[in-house]
Amino acid sequence: MNSQQLFEAILRKRSFLCVGLDTDIRKNPECLQGKSDPQFAFNKAIIDATAPYAVCYKPNLAFYEEHGAAGISCFEKTVAYIRAQYPDIFIIADAKRGDIGNTSQMYARAFFEQSTVDAVTLSPYMGYDTVAPFLSYPDKWAVILALTSNPSAADFEMQELANGRKLYEQVLATSSTWGTTDNTMYVVGATQAAMLETIRKWVPDHFLLVPGVGAQGGSLEAVARYGMNSRCGLLVNSSRGIIYADRSERFAEVAGIKAHEMQQEMDSLLTQYLR
Amino acid sequence: MNSQQLFEAILRKRSFLCVGLDTDIRKNPECLQGKSDPQFAFNKAIIDATAPYAVCYKPNLAFYEEHGAAGISCFEKTVAYIRAQYPDIFIIADAKRGDIGNTSQMYARAFFEQSTVDAVTLSPYMGYDTVAPFLSYPDKWAVILALTSNPSAADFEMQELANGRKLYEQVLATSSTWGTTDNTMYVVGATQAAMLETIRKWVPDHFLLVPGVGAQGGSLEAVARYGMNSRCGLLVNSSRGIIYADRSERFAEVAGIKAHEMQQEMDSLLTQYLR
Repeated sequence: MNSQQLFEAILRKRSFLCVGLDTDIRKNPECLQGKSDPQFAFNKAIIDATAPYAVCYKPNLAFYEEHGAAGISCFEKTVAYIRAQYPDIFIIADAKRGDIGNTSQMYARAFFEQSTVDAVTLSPYMGYDTVAPFLSYPDKWAVILALTSNPSAADFEMQELANGRKLYEQVLATSSTWGTTDNTMYVVGATQAAMLETIRKWVPDHFLLVPGVGAQGGSLEAVARYGMNSRCGLLVNSSRGIIYADRSERFAEVAGIKAHEMQQEMDSLLTQYLR
Repeated sequence: MNSQQLFEAILRKRSFLCVGLDTDIRKNPECLQGKSDPQFAFNKAIIDATAPYAVCYKPNLAFYEEHGAAGISCFEKTVAYIRAQYPDIFIIADAKRGDIGNTSQMYARAFFEQSTVDAVTLSPYMGYDTVAPFLSYPDKWAVILALTSNPSAADFEMQELANGRKLYEQVLATSSTWGTTDNTMYVVGATQAAMLETIRKWVPDHFLLVPGVGAQGGSLEAVARYGMNSRCGLLVNSSRGIIYADRSERFAEVAGIKAHEMQQEMDSLLTQYLR
């Protein structure tokens, strides 16, 4: 999927919602106990309930790797299920990978050949070599960490460089020359919404993946106000705020309601801020 | 395993060799074709041949993730095999993970509870939150990327900050306050051997994991000269230079010979530089 197709999906659904599949089986509703693969059973129910309102799913690899090979099998089944049932939905593997040379090439194969996700989150620390193999696949995306929503973003991301830029600005300035707006996006935490103005100076046309709305406290309205561009340019992620909104046997229905509420707010924000 | 136990293993074997299990089945010797799990069959043969000369194995997760759940199963079998046959050998999962909060906690569980490796490589980009969960496990280690051996290390790692330090120096200065020399080490590429003098000013007592000797061109002697401290403080990794030294049915024997050669050079270097 390229950026124009992603924008068209956003316009069709009047939504730029990404649902984060951070599926922690400790939090599974009781009604799923005894299922053969309770993590997948949860995902399937959540996906079916939220798909009308979401343009993107973002399985978080850590939550699958915790269960070893069985967890990876669940990740694979989840991706296959979305592909089969909802082929127009974008899938981001939230993996925060970042290695170099032949290792980076192997990660690109893992996600774009063994798996068929559209995009992978990557850490930029080691530079261009980390990202390059991911950019060679048509219609696939590298989603590069820029400015995250955690307190210790100050440790390094916010450090000021000798050239006057913050490190995250240097990451934007440098890495935006590696690819295009059709194969590169950036992770920008929603708690940093006011900084989206600065970020848009560096990457006016790129899509941004914005986690941290909801459970982490970021405001959707502020993200749209400071971050939206002429093709929306935003995918706003909500994980716990949707998938764990309810823990009873109504969990999926309530997740759908929460996703619908976000979609409705996004519909208004698209009317207000899409220029 | 704590740092003293690791040092004692180094003295017992007169070796600070880490063998990187970057097992690419495209390069598997023909004699392994038709095996039920050729990647594991390769690892098992390599481990048996090199274990007398190695204090550490470093499976590179990308090479297992490429095969999805089956690859993760091979990674798990490989770790279990080393644990059962060679319980005094340190195991580093080379995974370059780096996320925050409950995701980072999940990665720590994946590697230290679901798997039983001793250490995981981590990217420091997102700061303390990335590393913290890994430091709460007794005798387990975070191996933090500092200065890597790839050309694009210049993109960000070598950037000069407003405080006059390079970014990798800031990473060392900051992150060395998070843990101890018993739960934190650093990745420093061997092609940067001369910079080990600078690195030792920041982390005189920490263990360093040094890839890039051999295939990537770094000199073992230079690494020992600039990097060795009073408890060795080095794990030098070789992957392709050992495991793919030969592709015939003698592949394991030749890997053992190559590992033995490195061990002999390390024995001399320990005599020369251990102070």
